[in-house]
Amino acid sequence: MEDPASSYFNCTDSQRATFEAGIKLGSVYHQFVGTPLSEQNVDIVERSIEEGVRVQPFVEDVKVQIDRSHLREKRSPYRYVSLTGNMLHVELKVRYGDSFAICELSYVEELRYPLMRIVEVTGTKGS
Amino acid sequence: MEDPASSYFNCTDSQRATFEAGIKLGSVYHQFVGTPLSEQNVDIVERSIEEGVRVQPFVEDVKVQIDRSHLREKRSPYRYVSLTGNMLHVELKVRYGDSFAICELSYVEELRYPLMRIVEVTGTKGS
Amino acid sequence: MEDPASSYFNCTDSQRATFEAGIKLGSVYHQFVGTPLSEQNVDIVERSIEEGVRVQPFVEDVKVQIDRSHLREKRSPYRYVSLTGNMLHVELKVRYGDSFAICELSYVEELRYPLMRIVEVTGTKGS
Amino acid sequence: MEDPASSYFNCTDSQRATFEAGIKLGSVYHQFVGTPLSEQNVDIVERSIEEGVRVQPFVEDVKVQIDRSHLREKRSPYRYVSLTGNMLHVELKVRYGDSFAICELSYVEELRYPLMRIVEVTGTKGS
Repeated sequence: MEDPASSYFNCTDSQRATFEAGIKLGSVYHQFVGTPLSEQNVDIVERSIEEGVRVQPFVEDVKVQIDRSHLREKRSPYRYVSLTGNMLHVELKVRYGDSFAICELSYVEELRYPLMRIVEVTGTKGS
Repeated sequence: MEDPASSYFNCTDSQRATFEAGIKLGSVYHQFVGTPLSEQNVDIVERSIEEGVRVQPFVEDVKVQIDRSHLREKRSPYRYVSLTGNMLHVELKVRYGDSFAICELSYVEELRYPLMRIVEVTGTKGS
Repeated sequence: MEDPASSYFNCTDSQRATFEAGIKLGSVYHQFVGTPLSEQNVDIVERSIEEGVRVQPFVEDVKVQIDRSHLREKRSPYRYVSLTGNMLHVELKVRYGDSFAICELSYVEELRYPLMRIVEVTGTKGS
Repeated sequence: MEDPASSYFNCTDSQRATFEAGIKLGSVYHQFVGTPLSEQNVDIVERSIEEGVRVQPFVEDVKVQIDRSHLREKRSPYRYVSLTGNMLHVELKVRYGDSFAICELSYVEELRYPLMRIVEVTGTKGS
C-alpha cells in the first residue's frame, strides 16, 4: 500500500519499519493493560488486541498470547484480574517499503521487565 | 452470588448497585477510549468490551454498541479512527442483593457530553 | 452547582452520589493503570490523577496516594514500573444534592483485590 | 547509560533509536487519551505526561503540548473534555548508542490524522 504520509518522514525504510513496530507495541501495552480478565474472556481479549493492531498501518502479521497462569478460576465475584504487561506475549511483523521488522513483547525474567525488542530487520531482497 | 466484601461497605443495596454500575461505566470509558477502530474490528471490539464488563462483580447484563457513522472505509493506511466516548452506547444492568440498577452511557446532544446515567433503580420485589 | 442533566436520571440523591463516586473510581483505575512510574515522577502522577478527578462533576474532595514500596530505584534504563491497581489508594468525597458519598479504593489483603468501596453515605442534614 | 538488554536485540543503533521512539509515542497516546481535561488541570497533565516519558529508557528530551482551543471554560459540571490524540503535540528525542531519533506526534490536517513521524535520525558524529 502506498504511504500518503511519506513526505513527513526523513529516514530509511528500515528505521521507519522499526518505528512503526515500536508504536504498535507501545499501543498494545498502554491501551489494554488494566483490562478485566478471567478464563471467560481471555480468548476474545487476545483476538481483540490482535485485530486492533491489524487495523494500524504497515502491519503484516501479529499474534497475541496472554499467560493464563495468572488467571484465577471464577469462584467469587472478585475472582478476576487486570491484564498486566508481564502477562502479554506479542509477536509482530511490520513491513515498510523494502524492510521488514520482526519484533516481540515478552516478559524477560533476567530483567524482571516486559521487554519490547527487535528480533530481526530484513529487506525484501534478503537482509 | 454471596459478597465476600460486604463487611467493607456501609450503605443500602440500592446505593451499592448504583455504585457498582458507576464503576463499570467508568471502566469501559477509560479502558477502551483510544482503541484503534475500523469496519474490520468494530464487531469484536464491541463484544470484547461486553465480555470485559461481564467478568466484573454483580453484572446481570450488558450491551455495547459503537456508532459506525464515525468509521472510515479502509482506503489508505491511515483510514481508521480511535474509539471516543461519543461513539459509545452502553446499556448495563447491575444487581446487588435486592436492588437492580439499570444504567446507560450514551452521547447527549443537548449537553454535548457522553452521559452516564441511571435509568431506573428497582427492587427484586418491585421498586 | 445545578445539574443540567438531572432530567436524565431517575433515582434518589444518595443513589446518584454513589453512582458518581463509582464512575470516578473506575475512571482513575482504568485511565492510569499502566502509567510508567519511578521515584522521579510518582509525586506528579499522584497530583495529576487528583486533578483529573477534580474536573469531573460533583467531586468535593479527593486524595490519591501511590504505594512507593513497589518503586525501584533508577539504576538501569529498565528500573521503573507500571502503575497497578494494587499500588493505588484513593479517598473520594462526592456530593449530589443533599447526599455525600465517602468512598475509597484500596488494596484489601484478605480479598487479594483492589477494592472500591463505600465508606459512608450521609445527608447534608446528617445521615 | 549501558543497556543490560542489548543481547536481546538484533539491529543497528539507528533502528533501535527509532523503535524506542515509536514505543514512547504509542505509549503517550494510548495511556493518556481519555484523561479528563479542563483549563484547571491541562498544565499538570502536560507535565505529568512528559515525566512519564522521561522515566522510560533512552529518552534525551521530551516536550508535550495540549491544544487548549478544545477546552471549554468550566461553566457547568459537564464542561470538561476528554483528551484526544488530535489535541496532542509531542516532541521527542531518543538516543541509543551513536544514534539520535528526533520524532514528533502532531495532528496533520491534510491526513486528518494524529501522525507520529520521524523528523530526523542523526549520529553522534553527525548523520
